[in-house]
Amino acid sequence: MNRAIGVFDSGLGGLTTVKALNELLPNEDIIYFGDTARIPYGNKSRETVIKYAVQDTNFLKSKNVKMIIAACGTVSSLIGGKPLASDIPFTGVLLPAVQAACAATRTKRIGVIGTPSTIKSGSYGKAVKNIEQKAFIIGKECPMFVPLVENGYTSGKIAEYFVKEYLEPIKKENVDTLILGCTHYPILKDIIGEYMGEDVKLISPGEEAAKYASIALLSENLLNPEEKEGKNFYYVSDSPEDFEQNAVQFLGGHINGTVELANVS
Amino acid sequence: MNRAIGVFDSGLGGLTTVKALNELLPNEDIIYFGDTARIPYGNKSRETVIKYAVQDTNFLKSKNVKMIIAACGTVSSLIGGKPLASDIPFTGVLLPAVQAACAATRTKRIGVIGTPSTIKSGSYGKAVKNIEQKAFIIGKECPMFVPLVENGYTSGKIAEYFVKEYLEPIKKENVDTLILGCTHYPILKDIIGEYMGEDVKLISPGEEAAKYASIALLSENLLNPEEKEGKNFYYVSDSPEDFEQNAVQFLGGHINGTVELANVS
Repeated sequence: MNRAIGVFDSGLGGLTTVKALNELLPNEDIIYFGDTARIPYGNKSRETVIKYAVQDTNFLKSKNVKMIIAACGTVSSLIGGKPLASDIPFTGVLLPAVQAACAATRTKRIGVIGTPSTIKSGSYGKAVKNIEQKAFIIGKECPMFVPLVENGYTSGKIAEYFVKEYLEPIKKENVDTLILGCTHYPILKDIIGEYMGEDVKLISPGEEAAKYASIALLSENLLNPEEKEGKNFYYVSDSPEDFEQNAVQFLGGHINGTVELANVS
Repeated sequence: MNRAIGVFDSGLGGLTTVKALNELLPNEDIIYFGDTARIPYGNKSRETVIKYAVQDTNFLKSKNVKMIIAACGTVSSLIGGKPLASDIPFTGVLLPAVQAACAATRTKRIGVIGTPSTIKSGSYGKAVKNIEQKAFIIGKECPMFVPLVENGYTSGKIAEYFVKEYLEPIKKENVDTLILGCTHYPILKDIIGEYMGEDVKLISPGEEAAKYASIALLSENLLNPEEKEGKNFYYVSDSPEDFEQNAVQFLGGHINGTVELANVS
């Protein structure tokens, strides 16, 4: 089916999912919505985040997408695996990440890091326990990681300070798998990996959601049969120019598609 | 006149203005709106911030306030001294802060720090030049100050690192006055003052706006003639409970009034 895949996030983090989708499903069109006028979601209340997520979902539905990915760690954990759309396939990043973590762990000791809203929700822990009843899970909110990434502190001593501050209690618990429960965090993957050590497997929920989507679309016979290069269409609620500038860090290159302003509320 | 004074901000920073108003004008009622569902404003585009500021102003007008104070550094610098209301007195924090800075400086060398939007607007520099044509002004955006304050890093080596990183180029220019152009920054006043030295006068725009408002209301004969203690009424667009918790840092004590949810858009 040649309809596009819809992806949304509070801002830029979801672009890590777009990058993974472009690699896995090069024939597919993608429509992305970044709610840059209301970013961030991670320190807002459950009610407000879910209200925004419903509006974001409705915007993508209005674009006639064939599947929706909530590529936002906060939204995904607050809805706790429940879909925001029922007439088309829907996934957040929570369940794909949890499945990947449960597949990767050998010791059943799993760490989760995320925004304050994500960690307070306890959703990752509950979802892990559904698969691995005896798993040990330790969560830690990392409220400074998003501002650090957005302001370019992705290496060096300031980044190292906060990585140690947030991850020390997790490292002490000898986890062998760590879920990077916010789609901004893969930008800090190198420095987090260095601190945790090479024996700890890092799970990027945005990438896992892209893998899940590719399987779901294949099994529901919804992949695009045409052999042409897919296009990306980006919509944002604040300045398209600022989005284009900031996207480079997440896509690892210039923006590969049109960027338009969208009024979503 | 016994109508309330209206104050708004993107979130919590404007509470420094409320605190100053409560001290200067203890008989006055205050209605505060904090746009916590869309916080922060400082890294959003001019169009988006002004759209939000107009909505915030209209909300306060619907509460029949007698004056409006935009207690947000970003809003104040983007409107550049132009009022958002014309039927009642209105002030931002820009002009009162600039007047105080021009009165305080002896060397005519003034520093300004603020959010990226504030510094990019160049408004502080233009407003200073209107009063002191020969003044030298140096501005610096400090994007990590708001997350540092919001996450409690107001002293210690991390706060010191960023104070040095942002203020070193300003200190090198031998300014004798520094405008803390965002209503979050007075929370960092001690550590900023220590770094800049006691000869540098720090200007808090939120407090200066409160002083200006008290004079404007007096001269327009709009002060409350009743000899009773004024009340504070707080409205926020996200969780009232979270607001109450976080307000302590800005008010220097527990919230002194009711807090209600308001839908503003």
